[in-house]
Amino acid sequence: MKKLLAELIGTFWLVFGGCGSAIFAAAYPELGIGFAGVALAFGLTVLTAAYAVGRISGGHFNPAVTVGLWAGGRFNTADIVPYIIAQTLGACLAGLMLFVIVQGQADFAGVGGFASNGFGDLSPGKYSMMSALLTEVILTAIFLFIIMGSTHHRAPVGFAPIAIGLGLTLIHLISIPITNTSVNPARSTGVALFAETAAMSQLWLFWVAPIVGGVIGALLYRLVDDAPKENLEGFDQ
Amino acid sequence: MKKLLAELIGTFWLVFGGCGSAIFAAAYPELGIGFAGVALAFGLTVLTAAYAVGRISGGHFNPAVTVGLWAGGRFNTADIVPYIIAQTLGACLAGLMLFVIVQGQADFAGVGGFASNGFGDLSPGKYSMMSALLTEVILTAIFLFIIMGSTHHRAPVGFAPIAIGLGLTLIHLISIPITNTSVNPARSTGVALFAETAAMSQLWLFWVAPIVGGVIGALLYRLVDDAPKENLEGFDQ
Amino acid sequence: MKKLLAELIGTFWLVFGGCGSAIFAAAYPELGIGFAGVALAFGLTVLTAAYAVGRISGGHFNPAVTVGLWAGGRFNTADIVPYIIAQTLGACLAGLMLFVIVQGQADFAGVGGFASNGFGDLSPGKYSMMSALLTEVILTAIFLFIIMGSTHHRAPVGFAPIAIGLGLTLIHLISIPITNTSVNPARSTGVALFAETAAMSQLWLFWVAPIVGGVIGALLYRLVDDAPKENLEGFDQ
Amino acid sequence: MKKLLAELIGTFWLVFGGCGSAIFAAAYPELGIGFAGVALAFGLTVLTAAYAVGRISGGHFNPAVTVGLWAGGRFNTADIVPYIIAQTLGACLAGLMLFVIVQGQADFAGVGGFASNGFGDLSPGKYSMMSALLTEVILTAIFLFIIMGSTHHRAPVGFAPIAIGLGLTLIHLISIPITNTSVNPARSTGVALFAETAAMSQLWLFWVAPIVGGVIGALLYRLVDDAPKENLEGFDQ
Repeated sequence: MKKLLAELIGTFWLVFGGCGSAIFAAAYPELGIGFAGVALAFGLTVLTAAYAVGRISGGHFNPAVTVGLWAGGRFNTADIVPYIIAQTLGACLAGLMLFVIVQGQADFAGVGGFASNGFGDLSPGKYSMMSALLTEVILTAIFLFIIMGSTHHRAPVGFAPIAIGLGLTLIHLISIPITNTSVNPARSTGVALFAETAAMSQLWLFWVAPIVGGVIGALLYRLVDDAPKENLEGFDQ
Repeated sequence: MKKLLAELIGTFWLVFGGCGSAIFAAAYPELGIGFAGVALAFGLTVLTAAYAVGRISGGHFNPAVTVGLWAGGRFNTADIVPYIIAQTLGACLAGLMLFVIVQGQADFAGVGGFASNGFGDLSPGKYSMMSALLTEVILTAIFLFIIMGSTHHRAPVGFAPIAIGLGLTLIHLISIPITNTSVNPARSTGVALFAETAAMSQLWLFWVAPIVGGVIGALLYRLVDDAPKENLEGFDQ
Repeated sequence: MKKLLAELIGTFWLVFGGCGSAIFAAAYPELGIGFAGVALAFGLTVLTAAYAVGRISGGHFNPAVTVGLWAGGRFNTADIVPYIIAQTLGACLAGLMLFVIVQGQADFAGVGGFASNGFGDLSPGKYSMMSALLTEVILTAIFLFIIMGSTHHRAPVGFAPIAIGLGLTLIHLISIPITNTSVNPARSTGVALFAETAAMSQLWLFWVAPIVGGVIGALLYRLVDDAPKENLEGFDQ
Repeated sequence: MKKLLAELIGTFWLVFGGCGSAIFAAAYPELGIGFAGVALAFGLTVLTAAYAVGRISGGHFNPAVTVGLWAGGRFNTADIVPYIIAQTLGACLAGLMLFVIVQGQADFAGVGGFASNGFGDLSPGKYSMMSALLTEVILTAIFLFIIMGSTHHRAPVGFAPIAIGLGLTLIHLISIPITNTSVNPARSTGVALFAETAAMSQLWLFWVAPIVGGVIGALLYRLVDDAPKENLEGFDQ
């Protein structure tokens, strides 16, 4: 239960911080933080939450990471579904809090896209479904590749949250114009629920592509890994 | 006394650097650093001061952190009031220095809001008191959650100032438009004293909300902590 | 083979992330990440990939780094050509993926310069060939100097990817206006192939200058190194 | 001699990277890096150079740091003058390289202020001499305070270049509008020599204020330091 609560809080933080910075601060006149600020915010949610609870739950905060780490032999099959439920709950709770706060603005006129992900007409730069799919698969694959490598038992201790968090920043620096950047089905769900656009109708892609990409990335890492088989007691592969 | 002087200097640095960057550089024509630059500056004050004096005073620089760590069982009751006094003095001294420097500008026309915190008419984005309250409580809660986790006796050594400092950057990336971001009663006080607006009349919220949030966050961390009771000699709980 | 696959994936990531952020996000209206965001993206590709596979391949992702480390006595002569081939293949594969994705944009009107490097008319700020040459030589020299020092056997363990990655960010902060910043022949090649400009006709400079600079920087580091001869088993000098 | 060459190269890098980013990239139309990008560049020069040669020369790259560390009991009297000469030479060499490169621009129309420091009419935001003096003294004092603390023999190993480098970024985020930010007499000298403005006539302030501030900061740190006297073999106090 402590693990699930840690995942719930961490994913709450990811969505509240990442999507919150996009909703409140990205397009503020003159002084707004823009896509680069949002990219930094998303990355720092993971960097900070991983330092806070990484040793407790592993610090996934993302169903694609959970499934990817399972494919990479680092996570137990039995824990997958509870982790994904806790992550999605945390994301939705964050969406709700953002929904409440944004309505306190004097000139509030609806939540609009509410930082949801999309392709075609719902892509910030109007990129096609194929471009969106390819981008999300490639980026989540590399994300898992980075996670597998930086948390490897031979990697230097303590640096993984920096590599993973700033890796998520980098992913956003590339792809906000294409899909508003998901690589995380829970994050996509938590705000799509509240969006005034047709974001829910495109949500399937942001479950499928990140999970497929995550599995590819974890398997790719196993291909390059030259260390002897890790001694992963308690894991079922 | 060395601890109190360290807290005074650290909180001086937090206000001089964070509010100073907002006052001098945020809205500089064309080249200004914007909200993202101010967010980075606030975070870096804590990152740098924590590396400088963290081992001496713990590196709080913030009454909400001091009270939160006490609630989390990491700080002695007897030291709370002296710490808060030292922090508030440091913050006010920084406010004074900024007040002197800004008057040396050729086209000086008053200090205006002077980077103070506010809600309603004094919120940069005109957010309501309830939105401000909710935002400050949530953000300070997560801030303490990060601090409790990253300074845990089982956390990797040396990384806490990165997690905490960049956590404060993240908090600012989200909430400058809402309250100008406090999560720190000393910071709010140090500049409200000099503001030409009604910032003093709203100062109560920036003592209440961060302290309530800080206590919530520290208790929340104790819920997820799976380590055996820490051996905290010298602490009264 | 694992080393070569690691270099291929890492260089893929460098070009996909660095050039991708430039192509998709740099000039997005109002919210674009600008040169600073692109600089951050390039640096983070190396920071993250080095944490992921640095212990496997050394994490070069750049022919100038490979040749420089060889000149510095840190790399075997026999591995130079395979490494450079793997890096260039990874870079071209990334160029191809970016080429496919960018064509999914609704108002696609050709790839233009496609984040390629250049001088004279192809320099973003119209700098001469001599300025470009001098800049690329100096910057790659310092880059190798940083790499040699931060990966030294007496340097603190685990920090090299931060120094090297953020060093590449710094290099871009200086020189995007001059050459669009190469310091990496593979990166230049991977996008020049697809550019609609005459980038291929200037590609020679972005092989010659980084490699010359890299050798100078590595030798310069050996001049300042005061440690006793390293025990580099398996290296041929 | 290795130490002096390391200081020369490090200070070359500080001026070439920091002032270079200001000259080439800060005000580039639409995509320029602004003050925040320049602040990041200055900080990263020190972060990277300190990882590269910190173990060789101590990584000062700044006469105010050298004098401050001497006042703090961490540096030998006999080495002060050679260090300052090496730093100033490196800075001037960087100024010369920048001067050559910038003349290769197609629409070159003179170097203007050339990223030099100033007050009054030569201050970017037209701040008075008193504001400039106060700002430079305070910021250099805190800079040395951070350096003394983060390089303390009880501080965690390896993190000092992060604290010090990002501390310099923070200092620039605050004060570029006031003095264009010096806190480093060598940096001020290296570009003032080439400036077309009256920067040389104001250079005295950027030697006096940083050195006075540096001494204050180092002594202030000794006041808060609670560790037993360090065992500094080879230092003359």
